[in-house]
Amino acid sequence: MSTKPSRVHMAMGFDPDDDVTLNPETASLLERRDRVLGPSYRLFYREPVAIESGKGVWLKGVDGRDYLDAYNNVPVVGHSHPAITEAVTKQLSTLNTHTRYLTEPVIAYSERLLATFPEELNRVTYTCTGSEAIDLAIRTARHATGNRGLIISEHAYHGTTVAASGISPSLGPNNPLGEDVVTIPSIDTARIPADQIATKLAADVREAIARLQKSGAGVAAIILDSILSSDGVQVEPAGFLAPLVDIVHEAGGLYIADEVQPGFGRTGNWWGFERHGFVPDLAVLGKPMGNGIPIAALVGTTEAQEQFGDAVRYFNTFGGNPVSIAAANAVLDVIEGEELRQNAARVGAMLLEGLERIGAADDRVLHVRGAGLFLAMEFVDAQGDPDAALAARVVNGMREEGILISASGPAAAALKIRPPLPFSEQNAEQLLETLERVLPR
Amino acid sequence: MSTKPSRVHMAMGFDPDDDVTLNPETASLLERRDRVLGPSYRLFYREPVAIESGKGVWLKGVDGRDYLDAYNNVPVVGHSHPAITEAVTKQLSTLNTHTRYLTEPVIAYSERLLATFPEELNRVTYTCTGSEAIDLAIRTARHATGNRGLIISEHAYHGTTVAASGISPSLGPNNPLGEDVVTIPSIDTARIPADQIATKLAADVREAIARLQKSGAGVAAIILDSILSSDGVQVEPAGFLAPLVDIVHEAGGLYIADEVQPGFGRTGNWWGFERHGFVPDLAVLGKPMGNGIPIAALVGTTEAQEQFGDAVRYFNTFGGNPVSIAAANAVLDVIEGEELRQNAARVGAMLLEGLERIGAADDRVLHVRGAGLFLAMEFVDAQGDPDAALAARVVNGMREEGILISASGPAAAALKIRPPLPFSEQNAEQLLETLERVLPR
Repeated sequence: MSTKPSRVHMAMGFDPDDDVTLNPETASLLERRDRVLGPSYRLFYREPVAIESGKGVWLKGVDGRDYLDAYNNVPVVGHSHPAITEAVTKQLSTLNTHTRYLTEPVIAYSERLLATFPEELNRVTYTCTGSEAIDLAIRTARHATGNRGLIISEHAYHGTTVAASGISPSLGPNNPLGEDVVTIPSIDTARIPADQIATKLAADVREAIARLQKSGAGVAAIILDSILSSDGVQVEPAGFLAPLVDIVHEAGGLYIADEVQPGFGRTGNWWGFERHGFVPDLAVLGKPMGNGIPIAALVGTTEAQEQFGDAVRYFNTFGGNPVSIAAANAVLDVIEGEELRQNAARVGAMLLEGLERIGAADDRVLHVRGAGLFLAMEFVDAQGDPDAALAARVVNGMREEGILISASGPAAAALKIRPPLPFSEQNAEQLLETLERVLPR
Repeated sequence: MSTKPSRVHMAMGFDPDDDVTLNPETASLLERRDRVLGPSYRLFYREPVAIESGKGVWLKGVDGRDYLDAYNNVPVVGHSHPAITEAVTKQLSTLNTHTRYLTEPVIAYSERLLATFPEELNRVTYTCTGSEAIDLAIRTARHATGNRGLIISEHAYHGTTVAASGISPSLGPNNPLGEDVVTIPSIDTARIPADQIATKLAADVREAIARLQKSGAGVAAIILDSILSSDGVQVEPAGFLAPLVDIVHEAGGLYIADEVQPGFGRTGNWWGFERHGFVPDLAVLGKPMGNGIPIAALVGTTEAQEQFGDAVRYFNTFGGNPVSIAAANAVLDVIEGEELRQNAARVGAMLLEGLERIGAADDRVLHVRGAGLFLAMEFVDAQGDPDAALAARVVNGMREEGILISASGPAAAALKIRPPLPFSEQNAEQLLETLERVLPR
């Protein structure tokens, strides 16, 4: 491969300069891909996975192997779920148009979606991706408050647009923060005592507010994942985010909950902020919303949205189209019909217990944590420093054993386990048994 | 309706304060919609259209009426085309995942898509919307050039993200231009003699470059629709955009062609820049790409993309997923199989001739123009000033007669006619006959 040595690679990702022997089908796809796709693409794993089909929690490789998917939250109800295919097919053969005409599906779905939220969150605007929704949340908050400043976590990831990447420092040093963006330290639940986390976080946010007020930007919003994902899947003690609502309101800003990863039942609740016991002004929904058919949304209070809505029209060509809505509606059907929130809570608790058992027996495991089917196991070396190399070895070792997970956190030293919600107890057992075999290597 | 009087409405759009009697089904949908959708939504037409189904160039209203679609470019191969439904259904029941695994569909489609471009444009990156693609083009151009400045038309529309809306002054006075964005005057092919347009445009761009260089921002890119759409569908004389490539290159910037509206065969060519006889550094594709399944892309030279690609990874969760790709591939199948580019050229020429005939007989018609199935008729009042009120009357009059069009341009005084590409000669005759009846009213 002729990739330039200066290229920035992804933690855990494929590096063409590594000495990896690929199977012929994978090597052929990789060669064709390198001739046509843009140079900003990256692949997962030291040895990339080439996929042919998917069903439930399983992906079938072009190498003929079955891979247990313990990572993807987009196929929230499982890969290739027939209920999604049926709903999309039916709508696609009937009508697919935009929201400048009246169509019934977007209205009926909105009524149903909003019923899963606290009643204050009573208006929804559709986009196609979480990036677009967070970007719209920024525009909305700046209009609502008249302020510019945004407060984020120092290892946040919120998306790929100019504005969303400007609040995504986890993209690395070549990706500049946006103007009027200030960071608070990553919440480190592995190292800070549980009873000090909320207090420290509140103090950090007050300091960030002071910086934005001093600079003249003022506070438009604080934006946090309701499970702090790129910061290393920080989840407990539930409740530590709640005090920030009043703090940011006092400063004239809004609270934007990024629900792209925790939302749609993953934690056992519909929404991650429920775990923390607060109501945000705006909530950003994405990845799992249509089980892979692009759809995302901004949900919020009327008060938070009306200044923007009065001043500027917003039209997203594909946003809220009847086909994406049909997929999203079928997702709600399946989450409810197959009791997937309940399954996430039950199997998640079992996984957490298993990970804790494994961690208790291994000095290299600093911390195990999780909420529903969103879990992490954090590694340290003999000096107690984050051990990203071990995390990478485990992630790639699990991939060799046919189980797909990834890593997360400022040092990329925490395993990230986030499977589709139909993940069964048997799947969980397989993951735990495999981890017990891979970890000692 | 309790909409606040300060609310900014859309030209030609529904205003709840207007005295309009709606049919009961439409009124009921509108009332439900107003309770759940965000306040930034707007509806087309004085009397909104509520749609139940679509087929080919026809939409069926909840009022039981058939509407001839002479406006929508998203359903480029026609509403509810069975080839798209079949392709999406098949892929959706097999696999839908992301580009951090290797999958064959995105590679095979990229090879096919790039074959429609000049060979210099040899890499493609997928997004879900044109807004995301133009936003990525901005990030890409800034990395490639080390400059910040963007040159756009003063009535441009390029999208809805913070960065894309910052280069979309047509969104109105409450939507601020981005930093380091400078505008050139709208290209007015109705009023400037044809042989002076290229010269004036080049001079305007040189002046914009001088402003950006003086401010220290430098020139990252010029961004123009290859048919200047929101500027009033400015198309002729073909070639007037070509000299700008060298001018912007000399200043160290890139040329970004926005192909979201003209692309995918509408002009009779695959791409709007072909009409003008030049090759851009980056081309942004959107709306028609998947016939309504969200997919968009940035196509460009390796040179333009490699600095960004090396420095920053780009991952769009749904971008390039196999299902969106299946839709996009089926779109190419149908455009080729049904010879829709040829149809666009033939029926477009017929429409243009008909509009010119109608215009020649009516003093209020200042100018008629078009390229393929993208046409405009511009109105003036007795003083020779743009007559937006007449355009609105005609657009709403056509809607009453069951034909859907819109208006465009800085003064919203030009009809915008942009039907799905299977628009037939018979459809064109119906449109022309109806316009002849509506126009004198």
